[in-house]
Amino acid sequence: MAAPRTSATRRLVSLSVQHARCYSAPTDGAIPPTKAKYVPTEGTYPKGFVVGSAHAQVKASNTKFDDLALIASEIPCPAAIVTTQNHFQAAPVSISKKIMFQQKSWNIRGVVINSGCANAVTGKGGREDAIRMAKTTHDLLNKRNPNVSSIRTLVMSTGVIGQRLPIDRIEAKIPTLVESLGNTHEHWLRSARAICTTDTFPKLLSRQFTLPSYPGITFSIAGMTKGAGMIHPNMATLLGVVCTDAPIHKTALRTLLSTATNSSFNRITVDGDTSTNDSVALFANAAAAPNSDRIHLQGLEPKDIPRRGSSMEGETLEKQSEDYKEMNKVLTSFMADLAKLIVRDGEGATKFVTVKVTKADNNNAAHAVANSIATSALVKTALYGKDANWGRILCAIGYAPGHTCIRPQETSVSFIPADGTEELKLLVNGEPQAVDEARAAAILEMEDLEILVKLSNKEKDVGEATVYTCDFSHEYVTINGDYRT
Amino acid sequence: MAAPRTSATRRLVSLSVQHARCYSAPTDGAIPPTKAKYVPTEGTYPKGFVVGSAHAQVKASNTKFDDLALIASEIPCPAAIVTTQNHFQAAPVSISKKIMFQQKSWNIRGVVINSGCANAVTGKGGREDAIRMAKTTHDLLNKRNPNVSSIRTLVMSTGVIGQRLPIDRIEAKIPTLVESLGNTHEHWLRSARAICTTDTFPKLLSRQFTLPSYPGITFSIAGMTKGAGMIHPNMATLLGVVCTDAPIHKTALRTLLSTATNSSFNRITVDGDTSTNDSVALFANAAAAPNSDRIHLQGLEPKDIPRRGSSMEGETLEKQSEDYKEMNKVLTSFMADLAKLIVRDGEGATKFVTVKVTKADNNNAAHAVANSIATSALVKTALYGKDANWGRILCAIGYAPGHTCIRPQETSVSFIPADGTEELKLLVNGEPQAVDEARAAAILEMEDLEILVKLSNKEKDVGEATVYTCDFSHEYVTINGDYRT
Repeated sequence: MAAPRTSATRRLVSLSVQHARCYSAPTDGAIPPTKAKYVPTEGTYPKGFVVGSAHAQVKASNTKFDDLALIASEIPCPAAIVTTQNHFQAAPVSISKKIMFQQKSWNIRGVVINSGCANAVTGKGGREDAIRMAKTTHDLLNKRNPNVSSIRTLVMSTGVIGQRLPIDRIEAKIPTLVESLGNTHEHWLRSARAICTTDTFPKLLSRQFTLPSYPGITFSIAGMTKGAGMIHPNMATLLGVVCTDAPIHKTALRTLLSTATNSSFNRITVDGDTSTNDSVALFANAAAAPNSDRIHLQGLEPKDIPRRGSSMEGETLEKQSEDYKEMNKVLTSFMADLAKLIVRDGEGATKFVTVKVTKADNNNAAHAVANSIATSALVKTALYGKDANWGRILCAIGYAPGHTCIRPQETSVSFIPADGTEELKLLVNGEPQAVDEARAAAILEMEDLEILVKLSNKEKDVGEATVYTCDFSHEYVTINGDYRT
Repeated sequence: MAAPRTSATRRLVSLSVQHARCYSAPTDGAIPPTKAKYVPTEGTYPKGFVVGSAHAQVKASNTKFDDLALIASEIPCPAAIVTTQNHFQAAPVSISKKIMFQQKSWNIRGVVINSGCANAVTGKGGREDAIRMAKTTHDLLNKRNPNVSSIRTLVMSTGVIGQRLPIDRIEAKIPTLVESLGNTHEHWLRSARAICTTDTFPKLLSRQFTLPSYPGITFSIAGMTKGAGMIHPNMATLLGVVCTDAPIHKTALRTLLSTATNSSFNRITVDGDTSTNDSVALFANAAAAPNSDRIHLQGLEPKDIPRRGSSMEGETLEKQSEDYKEMNKVLTSFMADLAKLIVRDGEGATKFVTVKVTKADNNNAAHAVANSIATSALVKTALYGKDANWGRILCAIGYAPGHTCIRPQETSVSFIPADGTEELKLLVNGEPQAVDEARAAAILEMEDLEILVKLSNKEKDVGEATVYTCDFSHEYVTINGDYRT
């Protein structure tokens, strides 16, 4: 036993040197070389948004790194937010939802965020802290407009659960935070860094797009997100903020965000619905086309249609169906790319794995099976170990919840290589294939991999789903990565 | 960042030296000193059972350790088996179920087991291998009784999924295996060792008991089990074999096993229902009271009542309700202790944690919440880090599936110290308590801990459940164990 033990030890040491993380926002120097390519060096940011950051030392041990961020529109604008379904919803989540409700998803200026403390399960005091944080920011943002009294700034927190915010320290730094606002790439990057916790790199994207009914106008969209050290459902706090200068009606904004979230943050194996603090917010300030009609949701309900002179002045009843569809496409693809960055930053992740399940009874069944594979620690350690141990994939298919559509004799599994070469068939109609282990090893050497599962031979079964995950490189790997050899 | 990174590295190294495992049955020398106390040095074994082991080199890399085990009753006897619910049921599981069906849960001689290869997802060839393994053993066991043709020996396998058994090597060693049979403590211990995979110690228990209607008779029960390197639902293959010399009718045996499994193997965070191979078998050969009535299930259905002269000859219609109840108590407690050994052997486990949930709507809701806490990697790393980060417990309560009974304002959480001292209240009716961190640290220093959750203040809510789990000491710990400091 001496030899393998020593080798296991060695692997672990080299892993720890490579992947050890601390709980604090990353500095430039701390970004792992393999991840540097995911940090943009420039960007195109939406008009009328300013962002900033400051250091409030939310965690006493963080003596250096910014842990406050502010993303603000220069004018109040429509917003949408999706949040956790956890019963123990953190104070900032319930306060932000309340502010959204009071402002009718309209007239929102932005969001103030702290990392280092989640302000979750903190009782009445915690809710008061969240309100103070939002209100202080609001008051400073709106100093030229003192007659506005109700809060228009949302609040998010991420970090330790069950501890109170150091609200005095935070409040004292909000003036610095507001003074730091700006619209350069550096501002956006610093802000993205300030919301990180165990992330090894800031996650920031920006993009430009056009819309059919707005000829000659280039719109911008930018967003930042943060994940957690280990990607796994039910464990990570996920925050996301996306801003665009396109003109979008608030009802359309809500359905756009919800649709895009289902195809992005809900398709990575961080279950966006279950931590106490998960929140994704979307702001659309129309700054690139201030005098244009706003994009409406197709089939807008009469009750949602704003009257002239109401607080939604400036909108029209005109349905912009082509624009809505295009916006939906842009946002979904943008948010999917943002979500994938979280997977790229999985704890110790060396692989980006796409799990695609086809020919299921329906899409939900396909999603359940894809999720079961994507969250299986045994599958993920085998991927890390570059071991074509596809039996574990089958096992995960077999125990997927609500799996009414699993027919072992019709199940096929393949690896789709990232270099575009032919698929490698592992199982065809329930029968194991003679696998060329050298080719399997070569495919598993690549950073990206797709696992393709076909559940049925029946024509009527057309359910599909894709989930993104990473590999596992834990101490656990020292056992399970070598399981088959 | 330099200091914490170095410290993380150091922890990891010491962990790896302490806990690195290999995929093979453990030797005496390899048993970690902290686990040695769980390996019995003597035992009281049931009459009429013989056990043995042999080395078939199922894994090519295992050149040394026994990987075949046989547990057999000297005479055919009633048996019961509970197996995985995974859709990709391994060949030995479906073959054993078929044999049980053919023999009407009666006339079973025992079970032949291999470690090193699960014979799962191996198609038609795999089923043929499982039959060969069972039949060869059966033929050798029954050589004095050549007129018995149908197989009476069950078969179990554990190890890699998706690979064929080296059935020729196994078959060649079955004569050695049968010759090795014996009834001493050493025989039982060797056999328990041969079924291990990444386990660090063999899991064997034996006990004596009496039954009300059998004065003057001392019965024995013995059992062995194996888990996996890491305890987590949906991942480990769990095998268990329990033998008793008490006289139990086959129908009673089935309900006894099912009841006891629900309170034992289904209460540890290895989900016995989901791997491809999970199986627990129970044999009762009546050798300690060969001429006595067999214990019946209360309320036996007429269709289950054997006719005189049938293959169930020797049984009577007499209901033995007090005996059944006592047998139920003995078996449940025995199997719970056996299951707990799997938790004690969790990968890198340093703690044995009892999660008790009370005052739920019903027992199922309580179980869902207990399971959610017991499988939360964040809770488990905090326990390893001896960090009273109870917020993570709340978070896990909040995302338990089907949690209709969660009322944050009525939820209370305490640590119950293992030394019998007063409980440490962490949350009372949704309000965080001022926690004496020094006392919390002292409680978390102890190997055993109970987490007590009360979900409601309503009198009508009496649902309860207890789940056993261990802590996590992975690379992941280097991040999450220090999360709060």
